[in-house]
Amino acid sequence: MSEVPELEGNLLVAQSGGPTSVINASIAGVVFEAGKFGCIEEIYGGRNGILGILNEDLLDLNEEKANAITGLKFTPAAALGTCRYKIDFTNNPEQAAKDFDRLFEVFEVHNIRYFFYAGGNDSQDTAHKIHLEAEKRNYEMRVIGIPKTIDNDLPHTDHCPGYGSVIKYNAATVMEVAMDVKSMATDSGSCCIIEVMGRAAGWIAAGTVLAKKKTEDAPHVILLPERTFDEQAFLNRVKSTVATFNYCIVVVGEGLKDASGKEISADSEKLDAFGHPILAGVADTLRDLVEEKLGTKTRTVKLGYAQRAAAHFASRTDAEESFACGTAAVNGAMAGHSGKMVKIVRTSSNPYTWTTDLHDLAEIANVENLIPEDWISDDGLTPNEKFEEYARPLIEGENKIPMEGGLPKYAELQRFPVDKKLSSR
Amino acid sequence: MSEVPELEGNLLVAQSGGPTSVINASIAGVVFEAGKFGCIEEIYGGRNGILGILNEDLLDLNEEKANAITGLKFTPAAALGTCRYKIDFTNNPEQAAKDFDRLFEVFEVHNIRYFFYAGGNDSQDTAHKIHLEAEKRNYEMRVIGIPKTIDNDLPHTDHCPGYGSVIKYNAATVMEVAMDVKSMATDSGSCCIIEVMGRAAGWIAAGTVLAKKKTEDAPHVILLPERTFDEQAFLNRVKSTVATFNYCIVVVGEGLKDASGKEISADSEKLDAFGHPILAGVADTLRDLVEEKLGTKTRTVKLGYAQRAAAHFASRTDAEESFACGTAAVNGAMAGHSGKMVKIVRTSSNPYTWTTDLHDLAEIANVENLIPEDWISDDGLTPNEKFEEYARPLIEGENKIPMEGGLPKYAELQRFPVDKKLSSR
Repeated sequence: MSEVPELEGNLLVAQSGGPTSVINASIAGVVFEAGKFGCIEEIYGGRNGILGILNEDLLDLNEEKANAITGLKFTPAAALGTCRYKIDFTNNPEQAAKDFDRLFEVFEVHNIRYFFYAGGNDSQDTAHKIHLEAEKRNYEMRVIGIPKTIDNDLPHTDHCPGYGSVIKYNAATVMEVAMDVKSMATDSGSCCIIEVMGRAAGWIAAGTVLAKKKTEDAPHVILLPERTFDEQAFLNRVKSTVATFNYCIVVVGEGLKDASGKEISADSEKLDAFGHPILAGVADTLRDLVEEKLGTKTRTVKLGYAQRAAAHFASRTDAEESFACGTAAVNGAMAGHSGKMVKIVRTSSNPYTWTTDLHDLAEIANVENLIPEDWISDDGLTPNEKFEEYARPLIEGENKIPMEGGLPKYAELQRFPVDKKLSSR
Repeated sequence: MSEVPELEGNLLVAQSGGPTSVINASIAGVVFEAGKFGCIEEIYGGRNGILGILNEDLLDLNEEKANAITGLKFTPAAALGTCRYKIDFTNNPEQAAKDFDRLFEVFEVHNIRYFFYAGGNDSQDTAHKIHLEAEKRNYEMRVIGIPKTIDNDLPHTDHCPGYGSVIKYNAATVMEVAMDVKSMATDSGSCCIIEVMGRAAGWIAAGTVLAKKKTEDAPHVILLPERTFDEQAFLNRVKSTVATFNYCIVVVGEGLKDASGKEISADSEKLDAFGHPILAGVADTLRDLVEEKLGTKTRTVKLGYAQRAAAHFASRTDAEESFACGTAAVNGAMAGHSGKMVKIVRTSSNPYTWTTDLHDLAEIANVENLIPEDWISDDGLTPNEKFEEYARPLIEGENKIPMEGGLPKYAELQRFPVDKKLSSR
């Protein structure tokens, strides 16, 4: 450590992509850890990710009250703001080159020497490109990615901060909904289909298996996008479950695909900023199917954004890991690293122990990590005990959240803007 | 009190209609209070409401462990099971007469002298009919209704057990979703529409106003079924809100109606057991409208059963009131009353104080209590401060729920069946 030359300058941290319940804990980790190092002068936050940096919209985090930073440990949504803006070298290389010139203008004029970017696949790709560009320009800056995604689809890290909380909340919700449906179940039978997020990855859907304490418990079917939707096998399972228990709880990942590889109910005309199709309504599609083919009364639940923002029931383990990822980013940069992402390394499942490490961004950007084949049951209708062993420790513990008037009192930053030094772009 | 002749015999309590987060607290209240009176010999639960009684499916609640009964205070769903079976004198008087004969056969053979029925409008109607029938038959039995409905649409009670918890959870969810959407809001703007339950009553939708601490906070629009949907006023408000804040959060009650009185997205071909149309998809209908007319990216959340089962974030006030309603039912019956429903009487809003009383079932059955006109803002797009004053105390406090493996550990009854004495119907 002592060999690494001290790099004096300012730190900039930003958040990107969809928020999570614990994304801000990483920011708290960065701010508290960075405060320990004299060579880090200012600690800035980029407002709305890359977009804010392009607009020179920086926030002075050292001006915030310490209790607001502490409060970030349990506050959902992106406290600095986030964006889905992509520096798009593939489709718009001219704009991308302009964006990069502007980014480095902002870095230079504010003497940013530490840049931390919290996000998922696309954001780690952006961080990687910035790292390469800094090297190309001989601009000394240490760039570290902080993992963040409810989808849990980043490679090389055991799991991603944000994931434990979404499956804790979703598993509790599935358990509660199942108790409700079961308690109303009479001979005519009923079915409830709960749609969860996760795009092409079934990690979130799979996580609801933790609601199952006994074989007969819900969820009875978990449809993972990793497996092609088999209509007949699905209907058979729903039918036999209703015949046995009078009710059936189905969890489905939004990205479920049919045999042709088309997402069930994907509306191909609608794309988000990254060019991914917007997914909606797979639960409703399946409900129509069950009601038509089996005649079983079926209701749906679509948790949507509620699941990734439900900090009132976040996992303390997850929040602590998210905080530690922020801390590790600072320590990695202080040790001289750049072009890395912090990863979580599991050292034991039972008892659960973990540590953090760094991994080359080059091997992470745009790689999608799906559930291993052998963590899914042979019939493809539920994850198996290997998955359960993996997921179980991630939902342990609850955050202690201050309450006011019966509702969570989340932290709010005052957001002190850093003086702009450039003309607007 | 001492004038009332002691009535020796057994007690039967049952649950009906859609469950709530706190419905079981009333059962705990009944069991614990009934245990104090020597003239009450056995304490039975009817399995799946009226349906279970017709089938002579009774449970012996005195056999349950005391900690299971205590656990009912925070356990969601109907622990005894519930049903939507209706004794239908209007459309099927012959079957209804048969059902009544059977009910009283069961009451007599099990010497039921105290009958408590926890439910909403339809269930109070059933309780009332049973009371009248008992009088007609000269069968001495004290019948008391226990209010229970998330919809909060029972008349004469200040509010209904179950309501405080659903709006506490929904308000927290709206707050969290709003933070998420706001933190992603950039110039292009976005909208999120959250659909909540409540049928023709807007009480649940209105309750989410408690998430609003400042005027600019979400929810920005609350569409109450009490007011006819005004498409243009709605679109104008969404447009101006997005123009000002870059995002807009809309809450909509599932029973929203158009000018012709037709429910938006009601599927008139589908009716539930009580003949009410099944409602689904108003949020999706509004999303299509906003995207088409305003071009604003819009996502939806449909909490469905999750909202009424979310005991992990129930209101302690609500749970305590629900328990007290069970206690009051027993004490009312011991005081000689029958044909009454327990009601909650507010004695002060600030500080919040309340008590319980009894009200004639004749004035309650099938009356739907909607939000008063003057509790809604002039533009009809949000409840006003009178509503807020009413609702605010109902969400205060949290239950302490035991956790196991990161998930709530709810109580489970062992369900000891009472020996059947009749041939099956």
